[in-house]
Amino acid sequence: MAKLFQHGTLAMLVDGLFGGTLAVSDLLKHGDFGIGTAEGLNGELIILDGAPYQALADGTIRVIGDDELLPFANVNSADFEGRAVLSDIEMKDVDATLAKELSYQNTFVAIKISGTFRTVQTRVVKQQERPYPTLSETASKQQVFNAEDVRGTVVGYYTPDLFHGAGVAGMHLHFIDDQHEFGGHLLDFKADQVKLSWQLLDGLDLNLPIQDAEFMAHEASDAEKIQQSISESE
Amino acid sequence: MAKLFQHGTLAMLVDGLFGGTLAVSDLLKHGDFGIGTAEGLNGELIILDGAPYQALADGTIRVIGDDELLPFANVNSADFEGRAVLSDIEMKDVDATLAKELSYQNTFVAIKISGTFRTVQTRVVKQQERPYPTLSETASKQQVFNAEDVRGTVVGYYTPDLFHGAGVAGMHLHFIDDQHEFGGHLLDFKADQVKLSWQLLDGLDLNLPIQDAEFMAHEASDAEKIQQSISESE
Repeated sequence: MAKLFQHGTLAMLVDGLFGGTLAVSDLLKHGDFGIGTAEGLNGELIILDGAPYQALADGTIRVIGDDELLPFANVNSADFEGRAVLSDIEMKDVDATLAKELSYQNTFVAIKISGTFRTVQTRVVKQQERPYPTLSETASKQQVFNAEDVRGTVVGYYTPDLFHGAGVAGMHLHFIDDQHEFGGHLLDFKADQVKLSWQLLDGLDLNLPIQDAEFMAHEASDAEKIQQSISESE
Repeated sequence: MAKLFQHGTLAMLVDGLFGGTLAVSDLLKHGDFGIGTAEGLNGELIILDGAPYQALADGTIRVIGDDELLPFANVNSADFEGRAVLSDIEMKDVDATLAKELSYQNTFVAIKISGTFRTVQTRVVKQQERPYPTLSETASKQQVFNAEDVRGTVVGYYTPDLFHGAGVAGMHLHFIDDQHEFGGHLLDFKADQVKLSWQLLDGLDLNLPIQDAEFMAHEASDAEKIQQSISESE
Protein backbone atom coordinates (compact mmCIF):
# COMPACT_ATOMS: atom_id res chain seq x y z
CA MET A 1 0.00 0.00 0.00
CA ALA A 2 1.02 3.57 -0.52
CA LYS A 3 0.17 6.86 1.13
CA LEU A 4 -0.40 10.29 -0.31
CA PHE A 5 2.71 12.34 0.36
CA GLN A 6 1.90 16.00 0.94
CA HIS A 7 4.27 18.86 1.59
CA GLY A 8 2.66 21.88 3.24
CA THR A 9 -1.02 22.57 3.81
CA LEU A 10 -3.78 24.39 1.95
CA ALA A 11 -4.23 26.55 5.08
CA MET A 12 -0.66 27.87 4.64
CA LEU A 13 -1.44 28.93 1.06
CA VAL A 14 -4.70 30.56 2.18
CA ASP A 15 -2.65 32.74 4.56
CA GLY A 16 -0.09 33.65 1.88
CA LEU A 17 2.79 31.41 2.99
CA PHE A 18 4.01 30.97 -0.59
CA GLY A 19 7.73 30.60 0.20
CA GLY A 20 9.33 27.42 -1.16
CA THR A 21 10.39 24.93 1.51
CA LEU A 22 10.97 21.62 -0.32
CA ALA A 23 13.20 21.01 -3.34
CA VAL A 24 11.68 19.33 -6.39
CA SER A 25 14.31 16.56 -6.15
CA ASP A 26 13.22 15.83 -2.55
CA LEU A 27 9.55 15.77 -3.55
CA LEU A 28 10.29 13.23 -6.29
CA LYS A 29 11.77 10.83 -3.71
CA HIS A 30 8.18 10.34 -2.50
CA GLY A 31 6.47 9.60 -5.81
CA ASP A 32 6.38 9.86 -9.59
CA PHE A 33 2.81 11.15 -9.99
CA GLY A 34 1.35 14.32 -8.51
CA ILE A 35 0.47 18.00 -8.45
CA GLY A 36 1.58 21.17 -6.67
CA THR A 37 2.65 24.77 -7.02
CA ALA A 38 6.06 26.49 -6.99
CA GLU A 39 7.64 29.22 -4.87
CA GLY A 40 5.59 32.40 -4.90
CA LEU A 41 2.53 30.47 -6.12
CA ASN A 42 4.29 30.32 -9.49
CA GLY A 43 2.06 28.18 -11.65
CA GLU A 44 0.62 24.69 -11.46
CA LEU A 45 2.76 21.56 -11.23
CA ILE A 46 1.97 18.28 -12.93
CA ILE A 47 4.20 15.29 -12.12
CA LEU A 48 3.71 12.50 -14.61
CA ASP A 49 5.91 9.40 -15.00
CA GLY A 50 8.44 11.09 -12.71
CA ALA A 51 8.79 14.26 -14.83
CA PRO A 52 7.82 17.54 -13.04
CA TYR A 53 6.11 20.02 -15.39
CA GLN A 54 5.25 23.60 -14.44
CA ALA A 55 2.34 25.31 -16.21
CA LEU A 56 2.97 29.06 -16.05
CA ALA A 57 0.51 31.96 -16.16
CA ASP A 58 1.88 33.07 -19.56
CA GLY A 59 0.48 29.87 -21.02
CA THR A 60 3.80 28.05 -21.42
CA ILE A 61 4.90 24.80 -19.80
CA ARG A 62 8.45 23.98 -18.70
CA VAL A 63 10.20 21.20 -16.82
CA ILE A 64 10.90 22.65 -13.37
CA GLY A 65 14.46 22.35 -12.04
CA ASP A 66 15.46 19.82 -9.40
CA ASP A 67 16.62 22.47 -6.95
CA GLU A 68 13.61 24.78 -7.25
CA LEU A 69 11.58 25.08 -4.06
CA LEU A 70 7.91 24.32 -3.51
CA PRO A 71 5.46 25.49 -0.81
CA PHE A 72 2.83 22.82 -1.52
CA ALA A 73 2.70 19.56 -3.45
CA ASN A 74 1.16 16.08 -3.46
CA VAL A 75 2.76 12.97 -4.90
CA ASN A 76 2.45 9.21 -4.68
CA SER A 77 4.13 6.23 -6.27
CA ALA A 78 1.77 5.41 -9.11
CA ASP A 79 0.44 1.85 -9.07
CA PHE A 80 -3.08 2.13 -10.43
CA GLU A 81 -5.31 -0.73 -9.37
CA GLY A 82 -8.58 0.04 -11.14
CA ARG A 83 -9.57 1.21 -14.58
CA ALA A 84 -12.80 2.18 -16.30
CA VAL A 85 -13.75 3.71 -19.62
CA LEU A 86 -15.75 6.91 -19.21
CA SER A 87 -18.12 7.75 -22.05
CA ASP A 88 -19.75 11.14 -22.59
CA ILE A 89 -18.27 12.46 -19.36
CA GLU A 90 -17.64 15.90 -17.89
CA MET A 91 -15.60 16.91 -14.87
CA LYS A 92 -18.50 17.28 -12.43
CA ASP A 93 -19.49 13.65 -12.99
CA VAL A 94 -16.12 12.09 -12.09
CA ASP A 95 -16.95 11.68 -8.36
CA ALA A 96 -20.23 9.87 -8.98
CA THR A 97 -18.77 7.73 -11.75
CA LEU A 98 -15.95 6.55 -9.48
CA ALA A 99 -18.47 5.91 -6.68
CA LYS A 100 -20.17 3.34 -8.92
CA GLU A 101 -16.91 1.38 -8.97
CA LEU A 102 -15.96 1.46 -5.27
CA SER A 103 -16.42 3.12 -1.87
CA TYR A 104 -13.61 5.64 -1.66
CA GLN A 105 -15.09 8.60 0.24
CA ASN A 106 -13.17 8.02 3.48
CA THR A 107 -9.66 7.74 2.11
CA PHE A 108 -7.23 9.39 -0.30
CA VAL A 109 -7.31 8.34 -3.95
CA ALA A 110 -4.93 9.02 -6.84
CA ILE A 111 -6.87 9.82 -10.03
CA LYS A 112 -5.62 9.70 -13.62
CA ILE A 113 -7.78 10.32 -16.69
CA SER A 114 -6.21 10.00 -20.11
CA GLY A 115 -7.32 10.22 -23.72
CA THR A 116 -8.66 12.85 -26.10
CA PHE A 117 -10.79 15.56 -24.49
CA ARG A 118 -13.40 17.50 -26.47
CA THR A 119 -12.91 20.62 -24.29
CA VAL A 120 -10.58 21.39 -21.38
CA GLN A 121 -10.54 24.54 -19.24
CA THR A 122 -7.66 25.24 -16.87
CA ARG A 123 -6.51 28.10 -14.69
CA VAL A 124 -2.98 28.96 -13.74
CA VAL A 125 -2.02 31.03 -10.70
CA LYS A 126 0.47 33.85 -11.24
CA GLN A 127 3.78 34.27 -9.46
CA GLN A 128 3.55 36.60 -6.47
CA GLU A 129 6.27 38.74 -4.92
CA ARG A 130 6.98 39.33 -1.26
CA PRO A 131 5.27 40.57 0.81
CA TYR A 132 2.88 37.89 -0.37
CA PRO A 133 -0.88 38.54 -0.55
CA THR A 134 -3.38 35.96 0.72
CA LEU A 135 -4.63 33.25 -1.62
CA SER A 136 -8.00 34.92 -2.19
CA GLU A 137 -6.24 38.19 -3.12
CA THR A 138 -4.44 36.35 -5.94
CA ALA A 139 -7.67 35.09 -7.51
CA SER A 140 -8.06 38.07 -9.86
CA LYS A 141 -4.53 37.42 -11.24
CA GLN A 142 -5.28 33.88 -12.38
CA GLN A 143 -5.18 33.13 -16.09
CA VAL A 144 -7.82 30.88 -17.64
CA PHE A 145 -7.01 28.74 -20.69
CA ASN A 146 -9.22 26.72 -23.02
CA ALA A 147 -8.43 23.94 -25.47
CA GLU A 148 -10.45 21.74 -27.79
CA ASP A 149 -9.79 18.23 -29.07
CA VAL A 150 -6.70 17.84 -26.96
CA ARG A 151 -4.92 14.60 -26.06
CA GLY A 152 -3.62 14.65 -22.52
CA THR A 153 -3.83 13.51 -18.92
CA VAL A 154 -5.71 14.59 -15.83
CA VAL A 155 -3.54 14.11 -12.72
CA GLY A 156 -4.79 14.54 -9.18
CA TYR A 157 -6.32 13.32 -5.97
CA TYR A 158 -9.48 12.86 -4.00
CA THR A 159 -9.19 13.99 -0.35
CA PRO A 160 -11.93 13.24 2.24
CA ASP A 161 -13.87 16.21 3.64
CA LEU A 162 -12.34 15.60 7.08
CA PHE A 163 -8.98 16.85 5.78
CA HIS A 164 -10.17 20.07 4.17
CA GLY A 165 -7.81 22.87 5.10
CA ALA A 166 -4.96 20.43 5.64
CA GLY A 167 -5.44 19.42 2.00
CA VAL A 168 -7.93 20.23 -0.73
CA ALA A 169 -11.12 18.27 -0.02
CA GLY A 170 -12.87 16.53 -2.89
CA MET A 171 -11.28 16.21 -6.32
CA HIS A 172 -8.17 18.33 -6.88
CA LEU A 173 -7.11 17.80 -10.48
CA HIS A 174 -4.50 19.28 -12.81
CA PHE A 175 -4.12 18.71 -16.57
CA ILE A 176 -1.28 18.47 -19.07
CA ASP A 177 -1.53 17.73 -22.77
CA ASP A 178 0.65 15.15 -24.49
CA GLN A 179 2.67 17.88 -26.27
CA HIS A 180 3.40 19.67 -22.96
CA GLU A 181 2.00 22.87 -24.41
CA PHE A 182 -1.27 23.24 -22.48
CA GLY A 183 -2.08 22.62 -18.83
CA GLY A 184 -2.93 23.92 -15.37
CA HIS A 185 -5.40 23.47 -12.55
CA LEU A 186 -8.41 21.75 -14.10
CA LEU A 187 -11.63 23.79 -14.01
CA ASP A 188 -13.70 21.73 -16.43
CA PHE A 189 -13.54 19.15 -19.17
CA LYS A 190 -15.86 17.28 -21.53
CA ALA A 191 -14.93 14.09 -23.31
CA ASP A 192 -16.58 11.47 -25.50
CA GLN A 193 -14.41 8.60 -24.29
CA VAL A 194 -11.45 8.67 -21.90
CA LYS A 195 -9.80 6.19 -19.56
CA LEU A 196 -10.07 6.64 -15.78
CA SER A 197 -7.48 4.95 -13.54
CA TRP A 198 -7.52 5.04 -9.73
CA GLN A 199 -5.38 3.97 -6.82
CA LEU A 200 -6.69 3.84 -3.26
CA LEU A 201 -4.13 5.24 -0.82
CA ASP A 202 -4.11 4.09 2.79
CA GLY A 203 -3.21 7.34 4.45
CA LEU A 204 -1.48 10.69 4.36
CA ASP A 205 2.23 11.29 4.79
CA LEU A 206 2.16 14.99 5.63
CA ASN A 207 5.41 16.92 5.68
CA LEU A 208 5.56 20.31 7.44
CA PRO A 209 8.41 22.84 6.95
CA ILE A 210 9.36 23.09 10.62
CA GLN A 211 12.86 24.41 9.72
CA ASP A 212 11.14 27.47 8.20
CA ALA A 213 10.99 30.26 10.80
CA GLU A 214 8.19 32.05 8.95
CA PHE A 215 5.98 28.95 9.06
CA MET A 216 6.72 28.18 12.69
CA ALA A 217 6.03 31.73 13.91
CA HIS A 218 2.93 32.19 11.75
CA GLU A 219 -0.36 32.93 13.51
CA ALA A 220 -2.71 30.72 11.51
CA SER A 221 -6.17 31.89 10.55
CA ASP A 222 -8.95 30.04 12.32
CA ALA A 223 -10.81 27.25 10.57
CA GLU A 224 -13.79 29.40 9.62
CA LYS A 225 -11.65 32.05 7.93
CA ILE A 226 -9.72 29.38 6.03
CA GLN A 227 -12.98 27.89 4.78
CA GLN A 228 -14.21 31.29 3.62
CA SER A 229 -10.94 32.14 1.86
CA ILE A 230 -10.94 28.82 0.05
CA SER A 231 -14.45 29.50 -1.24
CA GLU A 232 -13.39 32.94 -2.48
CA SER A 233 -10.34 31.50 -4.30
CA GLU A 234 -12.18 28.79 -6.18
CA MET B 1 13.34 14.33 11.94
CA ALA B 2 10.38 12.22 12.90
CA LYS B 3 6.68 12.38 12.21
CA LEU B 4 3.70 11.61 14.40
CA PHE B 5 2.37 8.23 13.35
CA GLN B 6 -1.40 8.03 13.75
CA HIS B 7 -3.66 5.09 13.09
CA GLY B 8 -7.32 6.02 12.55
CA THR B 9 -8.99 9.37 13.11
CA LEU B 10 -10.87 11.04 15.94
CA ALA B 11 -13.82 11.42 13.55
CA MET B 12 -14.08 7.62 13.29
CA LEU B 13 -14.32 7.33 17.08
CA VAL B 14 -16.92 10.11 17.20
CA ASP B 15 -19.08 8.02 14.86
CA GLY B 16 -18.63 4.83 16.87
CA LEU B 17 -16.12 3.02 14.63
CA PHE B 18 -14.47 1.31 17.61
CA GLY B 19 -13.45 -1.89 15.82
CA GLY B 20 -9.74 -2.72 16.04
CA THR B 21 -7.85 -2.45 12.75
CA LEU B 22 -4.14 -2.37 13.68
CA ALA B 23 -2.24 -4.86 15.81
CA VAL B 24 -0.23 -3.54 18.76
CA SER B 25 2.91 -5.13 17.29
CA ASP B 26 2.38 -3.20 14.05
CA LEU B 27 1.84 0.05 15.94
CA LEU B 28 5.10 -0.42 17.82
CA LYS B 29 7.02 -0.59 14.52
CA HIS B 30 6.31 3.15 14.23
CA GLY B 31 7.45 4.31 17.66
CA ASP B 32 8.18 3.58 21.30
CA PHE B 33 6.22 6.45 22.87
CA GLY B 34 2.53 7.16 22.49
CA ILE B 35 -1.15 6.91 23.37
CA GLY B 36 -4.31 5.26 22.04
CA THR B 37 -7.33 3.14 22.81
CA ALA B 38 -8.11 -0.55 22.23
CA GLU B 39 -10.84 -2.40 20.35
CA GLY B 40 -14.30 -1.45 21.55
CA LEU B 41 -12.92 1.75 23.11
CA ASN B 42 -11.45 -0.52 25.80
CA GLY B 43 -9.43 1.78 28.01
CA GLU B 44 -6.57 4.18 27.50
CA LEU B 45 -3.19 3.17 26.12
CA ILE B 46 0.13 4.55 27.27
CA ILE B 47 3.24 3.49 25.34
CA LEU B 48 6.39 4.29 27.26
CA ASP B 49 9.92 3.09 26.44
CA GLY B 50 8.35 0.66 23.95
CA ALA B 51 6.02 -1.01 26.47
CA PRO B 52 2.28 -0.72 25.70
CA TYR B 53 0.16 -0.32 28.84
CA GLN B 54 -3.65 -0.40 28.89
CA ALA B 55 -5.48 1.45 31.68
CA LEU B 56 -8.89 -0.20 32.11
CA ALA B 57 -12.16 1.21 33.41
CA ASP B 58 -11.96 -1.07 36.49
CA GLY B 59 -8.92 0.89 37.58
CA THR B 60 -6.31 -1.74 36.74
CA ILE B 61 -3.45 -1.50 34.28
CA ARG B 62 -2.10 -4.35 32.15
CA VAL B 63 0.41 -4.79 29.37
CA ILE B 64 -1.69 -5.18 26.22
CA GLY B 65 -0.90 -8.17 23.97
CA ASP B 66 1.03 -7.82 20.72
CA ASP B 67 -1.83 -9.20 18.63
CA GLU B 68 -4.63 -7.14 20.16
CA LEU B 69 -6.24 -4.70 17.74
CA LEU B 70 -6.56 -0.94 18.03
CA PRO B 71 -8.96 1.53 16.35
CA PHE B 72 -6.90 4.63 17.19
CA ALA B 73 -3.38 5.34 18.40
CA ASN B 74 -0.51 7.81 18.11
CA VAL B 75 3.17 6.96 18.45
CA ASN B 76 6.54 8.41 17.56
CA SER B 77 10.15 7.40 18.02
CA ALA B 78 11.11 9.28 21.16
CA ASP B 79 14.10 11.60 20.77
CA PHE B 80 13.36 14.55 23.03
CA GLU B 81 15.22 17.69 22.06
CA GLY B 82 14.16 20.16 24.73
CA ARG B 83 13.73 20.04 28.47
CA ALA B 84 12.50 22.44 31.15
CA VAL B 85 11.71 22.21 34.82
CA LEU B 86 8.13 23.22 35.59
CA SER B 87 7.53 24.64 39.05
CA ASP B 88 4.11 25.05 40.67
CA ILE B 89 2.38 23.91 37.50
CA GLU B 90 -1.07 22.59 36.62
CA MET B 91 -2.31 20.98 33.43
CA LYS B 92 -4.03 24.04 31.96
CA ASP B 93 -0.70 25.94 32.02
CA VAL B 94 1.33 23.43 30.00
CA ASP B 95 0.54 25.07 26.62
CA ALA B 96 1.59 28.54 27.69
CA THR B 97 4.67 27.26 29.50
CA LEU B 98 5.86 25.44 26.40
CA ALA B 99 5.11 28.53 24.28
CA LYS B 100 7.70 30.44 26.34
CA GLU B 101 10.32 27.96 25.14
CA LEU B 102 9.51 27.79 21.42
CA SER B 103 6.96 28.40 18.65
CA TYR B 104 5.21 25.06 18.23
CA GLN B 105 1.61 25.94 17.40
CA ASN B 106 1.76 24.96 13.71
CA THR B 107 3.23 21.50 14.05
CA PHE B 108 2.90 18.26 16.01
CA VAL B 109 4.82 17.92 19.28
CA ALA B 110 5.51 14.93 21.51
CA ILE B 111 5.15 15.86 25.19
CA LYS B 112 6.52 14.03 28.22
CA ILE B 113 6.22 15.26 31.80
CA SER B 114 7.78 13.22 34.56
CA GLY B 115 8.25 13.47 38.30
CA THR B 116 6.10 13.47 41.41
CA PHE B 117 2.64 14.98 40.98
CA ARG B 118 0.71 16.45 43.92
CA THR B 119 -2.66 15.51 42.36
CA VAL B 120 -3.58 13.68 39.17
CA GLN B 121 -7.08 13.12 37.77
CA THR B 122 -7.65 10.69 34.90
CA ARG B 123 -10.62 9.21 33.11
CA VAL B 124 -10.83 5.84 31.45
CA VAL B 125 -13.32 4.93 28.74
CA LYS B 126 -15.21 1.67 29.15
CA GLN B 127 -15.27 -1.20 26.70
CA GLN B 128 -18.29 -1.10 24.40
CA GLU B 129 -20.04 -3.98 22.67
CA ARG B 130 -21.37 -4.06 19.11
CA PRO B 131 -23.51 -2.43 17.85
CA TYR B 132 -21.26 0.37 19.07
CA PRO B 133 -22.73 3.64 20.34
CA THR B 134 -21.26 6.99 19.29
CA LEU B 135 -18.41 8.49 21.30
CA SER B 136 -20.64 11.04 23.05
CA GLU B 137 -23.03 8.25 24.13
CA THR B 138 -20.14 6.56 25.94
CA ALA B 139 -19.30 9.64 28.00
CA SER B 140 -21.55 8.65 30.93
CA LYS B 141 -19.73 5.29 31.17
CA GLN B 142 -16.31 6.80 31.73
CA GLN B 143 -14.63 6.21 35.07
CA VAL B 144 -12.74 9.02 36.78
CA PHE B 145 -9.77 8.30 39.03
CA ASN B 146 -7.79 10.50 41.41
CA ALA B 147 -4.38 10.09 42.95
CA GLU B 148 -2.18 12.18 45.23
CA ASP B 149 1.58 12.35 45.56
CA VAL B 150 2.14 9.99 42.70
CA ARG B 151 5.35 9.47 40.74
CA GLY B 152 4.68 8.94 37.08
CA THR B 153 4.77 10.18 33.51
CA VAL B 154 2.49 12.23 31.30
CA VAL B 155 2.65 10.96 27.70
CA GLY B 156 1.01 12.68 24.77
CA TYR B 157 0.94 15.12 21.91
CA TYR B 158 0.09 18.59 20.78
CA THR B 159 -1.86 18.71 17.50
CA PRO B 160 -2.50 22.01 15.61
CA ASP B 161 -6.11 23.22 15.40
CA LEU B 162 -6.07 22.65 11.63
CA PHE B 163 -6.08 18.88 12.22
CA HIS B 164 -8.97 18.71 14.68
CA GLY B 165 -11.26 15.87 13.75
CA ALA B 166 -8.42 14.04 12.00
CA GLY B 167 -6.66 14.06 15.37
CA VAL B 168 -7.28 15.61 18.76
CA ALA B 169 -6.40 19.31 18.54
CA GLY B 170 -4.43 20.88 21.35
CA MET B 171 -2.86 18.84 24.12
CA HIS B 172 -3.94 15.19 24.24
CA LEU B 173 -2.24 13.65 27.27
CA HIS B 174 -2.39 10.31 29.08
CA PHE B 175 -0.77 9.37 32.40
CA ILE B 176 0.79 6.30 33.95
CA ASP B 177 2.39 6.03 37.38
CA ASP B 178 5.78 4.41 37.91
CA GLN B 179 4.18 1.37 39.62
CA HIS B 180 1.82 0.82 36.65
CA GLU B 181 -1.13 0.87 39.01
CA PHE B 182 -2.77 4.21 38.11
CA GLY B 183 -3.36 5.86 34.76
CA GLY B 184 -5.67 6.96 31.97
CA HIS B 185 -6.59 9.97 29.87
CA LEU B 186 -5.30 12.97 31.79
CA LEU B 187 -8.00 15.40 32.96
CA ASP B 188 -5.94 17.46 35.38
CA PHE B 189 -2.77 17.55 37.41
CA LYS B 190 -0.97 19.80 39.86
CA ALA B 191 2.71 19.52 40.67
CA ASP B 192 5.33 21.42 42.64
CA GLN B 193 8.20 20.48 40.38
CA VAL B 194 8.23 18.16 37.37
CA LYS B 195 10.33 17.82 34.22
CA LEU B 196 8.85 18.66 30.81
CA SER B 197 10.46 17.19 27.68
CA TRP B 198 9.38 17.95 24.13
CA GLN B 199 10.13 16.85 20.60
CA LEU B 200 9.00 18.82 17.56
CA LEU B 201 7.66 16.48 14.86
CA ASP B 202 7.81 17.54 11.23
CA GLY B 203 4.55 16.04 10.06
CA LEU B 204 1.85 13.43 10.36
CA ASP B 205 2.07 9.86 9.10
CA LEU B 206 -1.62 9.00 9.05
CA ASN B 207 -2.65 5.41 8.52
CA LEU B 208 -6.25 4.61 7.50
CA PRO B 209 -7.78 1.09 7.71
CA ILE B 210 -8.76 0.86 4.05
CA GLN B 211 -8.92 -2.96 4.25
CA ASP B 212 -11.78 -2.58 6.73
CA ALA B 213 -15.12 -2.74 4.87
CA GLU B 214 -16.99 -1.02 7.71
CA PHE B 215 -14.64 1.97 7.57
CA MET B 216 -14.70 2.21 3.80
CA ALA B 217 -18.51 2.05 3.54
CA HIS B 218 -19.12 4.40 6.47
CA GLU B 219 -21.07 7.58 5.83
CA ALA B 220 -19.05 10.04 7.89
CA SER B 221 -20.73 12.75 9.92
CA ASP B 222 -20.11 16.23 8.61
CA ALA B 223 -17.49 18.44 10.21
CA GLU B 224 -19.99 20.41 12.30
CA LYS B 225 -21.50 17.28 13.85
CA ILE B 226 -18.05 15.91 14.62
CA GLN B 227 -17.11 19.15 16.35
CA GLN B 228 -20.29 19.06 18.44
CA SER B 229 -19.82 15.41 19.43
CA ILE B 230 -16.24 16.04 20.48
CA SER B 231 -17.37 18.87 22.74
CA GLU B 232 -20.00 16.61 24.33
CA SER B 233 -17.45 13.84 24.95
CA GLU B 234 -14.87 16.01 26.67
